[in-house]
Amino acid sequence: MDESFQEARKAPPEGTQDLLFEAARRLRRCEAALVRVFEAHGFAEVIPPAVETAEVFAEASAGGEAGALRVVDRRGRLLALRADFTAQVARIAATRLAGMSPLRLYYRGSVVRESAAESGVPRERLQAGCELVGEGEPAADAEMIALAAASLHALGIPAGDARIAVGTVGYFSALIDAAGASPRLARALSDAIDRKDLPSLTALCSELAPGKPRDALLMLAQPPRPQTEAVTLLSRALELSPAPAATAALQRLASALQVAKARSLGAELEVDLGEVRGLGYYTGIVFNLYAAGSPRPVGGGGRYDTLLGRFGDPRPAVGFSLDLDALVPLARPA
Amino acid sequence: MDESFQEARKAPPEGTQDLLFEAARRLRRCEAALVRVFEAHGFAEVIPPAVETAEVFAEASAGGEAGALRVVDRRGRLLALRADFTAQVARIAATRLAGMSPLRLYYRGSVVRESAAESGVPRERLQAGCELVGEGEPAADAEMIALAAASLHALGIPAGDARIAVGTVGYFSALIDAAGASPRLARALSDAIDRKDLPSLTALCSELAPGKPRDALLMLAQPPRPQTEAVTLLSRALELSPAPAATAALQRLASALQVAKARSLGAELEVDLGEVRGLGYYTGIVFNLYAAGSPRPVGGGGRYDTLLGRFGDPRPAVGFSLDLDALVPLARPA
Repeated sequence: MDESFQEARKAPPEGTQDLLFEAARRLRRCEAALVRVFEAHGFAEVIPPAVETAEVFAEASAGGEAGALRVVDRRGRLLALRADFTAQVARIAATRLAGMSPLRLYYRGSVVRESAAESGVPRERLQAGCELVGEGEPAADAEMIALAAASLHALGIPAGDARIAVGTVGYFSALIDAAGASPRLARALSDAIDRKDLPSLTALCSELAPGKPRDALLMLAQPPRPQTEAVTLLSRALELSPAPAATAALQRLASALQVAKARSLGAELEVDLGEVRGLGYYTGIVFNLYAAGSPRPVGGGGRYDTLLGRFGDPRPAVGFSLDLDALVPLARPA
Repeated sequence: MDESFQEARKAPPEGTQDLLFEAARRLRRCEAALVRVFEAHGFAEVIPPAVETAEVFAEASAGGEAGALRVVDRRGRLLALRADFTAQVARIAATRLAGMSPLRLYYRGSVVRESAAESGVPRERLQAGCELVGEGEPAADAEMIALAAASLHALGIPAGDARIAVGTVGYFSALIDAAGASPRLARALSDAIDRKDLPSLTALCSELAPGKPRDALLMLAQPPRPQTEAVTLLSRALELSPAPAATAALQRLASALQVAKARSLGAELEVDLGEVRGLGYYTGIVFNLYAAGSPRPVGGGGRYDTLLGRFGDPRPAVGFSLDLDALVPLARPA
């Protein structure tokens, strides 16, 4: 056995960690606080396996995001380490729990993904989250936004330090369709919007014909706006709407925001029409959670109305997950 | 995508399971009861990662036991899914916690192993367990036997339904050395003893020269004996002891049993000198836990005084793990 190997096995693999003593206690206290708030809201736990048929995660990675770590077992079957709880919960909801509606399910544990080179994002990530299955209305979107806010509250994140940026993938998709952008151009537009990179976005939009879709796309690189400006922002977006699908997406977003506002426990609700990426399976609202002190989002979620259909039971669903690696250092659970 | 694939992804992979609702609640209640008893005995939690450098598990499988599921990451490094907590805890104790003695550490979570064909043993198994690092005396062996008994008690297993069969790998190893048995013959002897298969054992022993080691080996296929018969059994084994190592192993076992007896909360302590298999790293006492209603052991453990040395910090250690898949259906935690 060579020396570098001797050294390698003294540390956990790159992108993973050992949690010891106080770090483990802090994680468990946060999990317990989240379990209390999830259960108080009527959610029940499911525990999916640590490995899955690899195909379950096929839609669980999106642009730039690294995928599942794959394993071939001794019978030659392709498995994958759990890379995403939502896909597993969708499989369970669509099979053993088919037809039971609505379902309110929560989970906790870790996911493992192949590291995106130089990303600095850990390969193993601790998560907890909720999925609401079988409810397609904006009220369900609002329920999950409010539960995300309640989760941050339960972790002791002060309301003034918590932000939830809500957007919709439906508006962007409709704009791309209406503009007739190629898949390559659509991806580049999405990247520029994600980076809030207005110069690049402007350059890319010059490849499109003038008109409402182009004007609307240019608007998407704006920073998130506080909810007080939501009406103005959404009105402007509606004016530029090129298609009924885009209009419907905006109306759903407005409706969800209105219901969630009264229930967000003081967390700042923002509108971010530039929130267009995220996991590949989102079909409606999408949201990211932010907490003062964390450079990256501390969680996120959205609506995924086509994922359960892949497992044979087409039903709408919406959910979110919390990034406990980011939250535990900030949390002061009761 | 072909149809069998569509079907495959509707169920969890073979040898794994989805725990839903009441099943998840029962598991969590058992975990909480165990955490309480572990912490009351001075143990603190460590949470190792879900994947490890594959070499960490190299000694963690023994005869007949299937090994770790391996993964090659995108940089070509060989990783493995967590197949054994003890090896991970040994790595942590020998590196970040080097020199801190004694260490009392506990863990909970799942391990994943390649399925032994037709074994019926699940690939993903839920476990919780404890490791006591840095104490080499029989009192430490006794402490862990007693804590295993306290764990079964905390899960609500009636004392009359709990059995702990204690043996030592040192006696068998010394007999094999003294008898000059080949590795092939040693493995066959171990298998026959494990199956309590006296006819096979007798046939295999006929390949050995007559004498004390052979007579002692023939004694190892006896069923476990209640502790009331321990003195008789151990005296007979001592008479047949062919070497100081064998004598020392028996004396340590007798000493540990004597201390553990008063602290086993009524669980039946048995002596089983035929308890010679188990994970490859055991060096001293070994024990299996049984509960009425479970066809297979509900846990087990032993002393492993050479494992930490593989990670650069040679220290004695002893521990055990509980098989929660087997225990949860039997448990009635307070």
